[in-house]
Amino acid sequence: MIDTPTLVDQYCHGVLRTELGLGTFEAHLGRTAGPPAPGTTFFDTQTGFAVRRWCPPLLGLEPHCPPARYLARRRELGVIESGRRLLRASGISTYLVDTGLPGDLTPPAEIAATGAAEAHEIVRLELLAEQVADTSGTVDALLANLAEAVHGAAASAVAFISVAALRCGLSLAPEPPGPGEVRGAASRWLTRRPVGGRLTDPVLLRHLLWIAISSGRPLQLHVGIEDPTQLGEFAAATSGLGTELILLHGYPHHRQAAHLTSVFPHVYADLGPVLVQTGPRAAAILAEILELAPFGKLLFSSGAHGLPELHVVAASSFREALSRVLAEWTGGGAWSRTDAQRVAGMIAAGNARRVYGLAAGDGR
Amino acid sequence: MIDTPTLVDQYCHGVLRTELGLGTFEAHLGRTAGPPAPGTTFFDTQTGFAVRRWCPPLLGLEPHCPPARYLARRRELGVIESGRRLLRASGISTYLVDTGLPGDLTPPAEIAATGAAEAHEIVRLELLAEQVADTSGTVDALLANLAEAVHGAAASAVAFISVAALRCGLSLAPEPPGPGEVRGAASRWLTRRPVGGRLTDPVLLRHLLWIAISSGRPLQLHVGIEDPTQLGEFAAATSGLGTELILLHGYPHHRQAAHLTSVFPHVYADLGPVLVQTGPRAAAILAEILELAPFGKLLFSSGAHGLPELHVVAASSFREALSRVLAEWTGGGAWSRTDAQRVAGMIAAGNARRVYGLAAGDGR
Amino acid sequence: MIDTPTLVDQYCHGVLRTELGLGTFEAHLGRTAGPPAPGTTFFDTQTGFAVRRWCPPLLGLEPHCPPARYLARRRELGVIESGRRLLRASGISTYLVDTGLPGDLTPPAEIAATGAAEAHEIVRLELLAEQVADTSGTVDALLANLAEAVHGAAASAVAFISVAALRCGLSLAPEPPGPGEVRGAASRWLTRRPVGGRLTDPVLLRHLLWIAISSGRPLQLHVGIEDPTQLGEFAAATSGLGTELILLHGYPHHRQAAHLTSVFPHVYADLGPVLVQTGPRAAAILAEILELAPFGKLLFSSGAHGLPELHVVAASSFREALSRVLAEWTGGGAWSRTDAQRVAGMIAAGNARRVYGLAAGDGR
Repeated sequence: MIDTPTLVDQYCHGVLRTELGLGTFEAHLGRTAGPPAPGTTFFDTQTGFAVRRWCPPLLGLEPHCPPARYLARRRELGVIESGRRLLRASGISTYLVDTGLPGDLTPPAEIAATGAAEAHEIVRLELLAEQVADTSGTVDALLANLAEAVHGAAASAVAFISVAALRCGLSLAPEPPGPGEVRGAASRWLTRRPVGGRLTDPVLLRHLLWIAISSGRPLQLHVGIEDPTQLGEFAAATSGLGTELILLHGYPHHRQAAHLTSVFPHVYADLGPVLVQTGPRAAAILAEILELAPFGKLLFSSGAHGLPELHVVAASSFREALSRVLAEWTGGGAWSRTDAQRVAGMIAAGNARRVYGLAAGDGR
Repeated sequence: MIDTPTLVDQYCHGVLRTELGLGTFEAHLGRTAGPPAPGTTFFDTQTGFAVRRWCPPLLGLEPHCPPARYLARRRELGVIESGRRLLRASGISTYLVDTGLPGDLTPPAEIAATGAAEAHEIVRLELLAEQVADTSGTVDALLANLAEAVHGAAASAVAFISVAALRCGLSLAPEPPGPGEVRGAASRWLTRRPVGGRLTDPVLLRHLLWIAISSGRPLQLHVGIEDPTQLGEFAAATSGLGTELILLHGYPHHRQAAHLTSVFPHVYADLGPVLVQTGPRAAAILAEILELAPFGKLLFSSGAHGLPELHVVAASSFREALSRVLAEWTGGGAWSRTDAQRVAGMIAAGNARRVYGLAAGDGR
Repeated sequence: MIDTPTLVDQYCHGVLRTELGLGTFEAHLGRTAGPPAPGTTFFDTQTGFAVRRWCPPLLGLEPHCPPARYLARRRELGVIESGRRLLRASGISTYLVDTGLPGDLTPPAEIAATGAAEAHEIVRLELLAEQVADTSGTVDALLANLAEAVHGAAASAVAFISVAALRCGLSLAPEPPGPGEVRGAASRWLTRRPVGGRLTDPVLLRHLLWIAISSGRPLQLHVGIEDPTQLGEFAAATSGLGTELILLHGYPHHRQAAHLTSVFPHVYADLGPVLVQTGPRAAAILAEILELAPFGKLLFSSGAHGLPELHVVAASSFREALSRVLAEWTGGGAWSRTDAQRVAGMIAAGNARRVYGLAAGDGR
């Protein structure tokens, strides 16, 4: 058996602070905001089955107990105590937390305290820009404040995350937009946006990406379910600048994401929420990523959001998947045990420590 | 071992009524109308090997016997008796039959009688429209007759099937076309089409889809080998209207099809002819679909056409694949046996009964 | 156990003639010209691990020994002796060699002598055209010389290889360009190209493809990491002309490549460098290709370039992968042992012998 060291979760969100009923809990198992189809439940998904597999034992119940029984026990313990038990059993010792989603979610310091772990903030570029726009009256002020906000955030944040590719497509023009273009777009945005309006202008989204790149902090790019090879020109344009790009959510194009990590030295990929969503299939998917991805280019993450159960499921699925894959490869003689142990440590924590400059104490 | 209940085949065609020679039989194993490459035979495919695995024992021969021996035995029994033996051994108790393909194929009532099963008709929208056009002299008559024909068919058909996405691309404009557009397209079509001419006009194809949607019957969409996420906007536009969409033939983009079923409550996916075409790989493909697809959103089908052998291969491959996948997942503790048994029943028959409103007696 | 016969490597390059240090050797394990990411090495890839698995025992060392030890032993034996030992242990008895890459690589006759094997030349169309352009002063001369050079090469070459799809996209216009178009493009190219300039003009690239097709020699098409179904119209346009198309490098769209081989009689696919790049995953990928590909349509190749270690890795990975896949399928009763043995021989050598018209003595 290959041991998996404690994990650095290189991309996740906080957990909810409120007690949850069965319906509210179920809603967090789906992949959409809406209800499940008539006659179905989100518990009948790999995520639902995986929660019922891994979490009940951590609260003193049998695996696969009925959802209502699990929720009753969760409420009996209370959201704080159940969160403590779940996170502390996850094996995650460092959380990198995207603080850019709405909702009453625990901030990094609180998830660290609850989980007896370290935590660092990932700053969401588009939210930062929207907050800047809310308080900037002129184009000059907006552009100066944007640059200042990003560089200011770079001082304390461990990384930036951008959802630009989701908002304007992955085939975004690779080069930085020119100053005139940026001023025009900024002016239109300031004039037309309602307070709190989302940033969707492609020119400003690209401008923001390039400010972030100039900051030198690693830049996470959410690629959704699109084919990430569309980002090839952007990757080429940003190569050699000293800023790492980390692709989030490559599935079902994770082989293409792995390809990019193998042809661009500064491009990395994470395993993302696929671990939470695919249950016993995580091993097969991990193996597919490990076809082309250099072993120093892959990072564990949970992508978990709202429920500490999802951090547990991601971490447990990852450890089991990694063990199964490496056991198969060492058993057949394809890999040596020494190499397998070393690669396990790299994907679980070592690569993230190197990319994000985390202290050696983090992720141990 | 997880038992698979008897199956509802939610999409298939009838079988040929004529005696077949070796060459004619072989032609039905290929994926194209033309001949195999020089020096090769369609028997040297997963479909050919699967037919030789599953069917000879049902006619009293050894598995994997030579094709010529199988065909000789098939002719000895006769097309009717061999069809009876094959279909009755398939484990399919309800056939939903697309009656829109040409050729001397058994209609639903006849396949039901041969297979000692239930059968219901799926009406092919484009064929219906072409038949209507053959007998409509004016634009007004054509449009009125189209609407009447679709709503009339909805009274007896169990579902509609559309091949619009194959004829005008999956990225079809999502909204219903306007009345002026439709009249213009109808006029052009009436003027220019030869008798029996195929409907390929994108406006009329979309118009037809929206009439079908307004009927409330489930609507099957053939997606070919294209990426079904291109249908995302159409899925969004038809969400909440109360009509289910069932994606046919997702392979090799079945993970994308599964994604759509997980984000749109009214979108379903079938396993389709991939079961017939991939032999011992059916388990791997089924497992890939079950990564993201909610378990209430997946439906067995054979897609079989012409040869009762193909219904047998699809059903046998499915049962074996499902058993293997569920045995692995329950054996490793990922799923409980109770859940596995329940999900097997859903995919094999229960989901189809719910979606198509079949009586409980169907599919048992 | 299914025996794999000796192999026909239907697409590879020569090997380097110079002694290599650790860094130069490592550079040939990467998928790009540049260096690995800081803190990583190309030895930490499936290719690196596979080289360390298969090659040290052939030079008298333990599997998985450290890279530095392997390189020291390789230099101790010398590039000629280590090349002899590696190639002669590869199990490849016929090499089809693309001679169109730069560098001090062994030509076909030399790799044949080193490996105690047969070798034949594959001519790279674009290089041929660039050489012709270097010595043609007028449009008339260029066009006449192009046709003469291709038809001349066809007399001795075993096949042509084109990288047109990499240079102008896979969705190239399917029909031959018209004479006026070709003359215009030829004139522009002659006027503007520097000596040794690469051919990237889409019209001339297509013109060249059609000259090659008229020669009747099999035409290999490099598809890179693009989806080969984009070649569908070109495949349709070239169907029935008597010239075979062989798709190289389908991964990660190898299922789509397999689809094309199943719908076009003249389209074939190889396994390509994926065998070198994916280590113990080769079996899974081979199994995916064998879902739709007719068994007479798939060809072994190594795609190896520069290091004889890569020929060894490809051949060893292929034999292991094929054995594992066929053992699983025969073990479960899906395939008969006789069929499995026969199909192994087809993919390993028989199909290539048929497609390229190799003597029966080749590939034994």
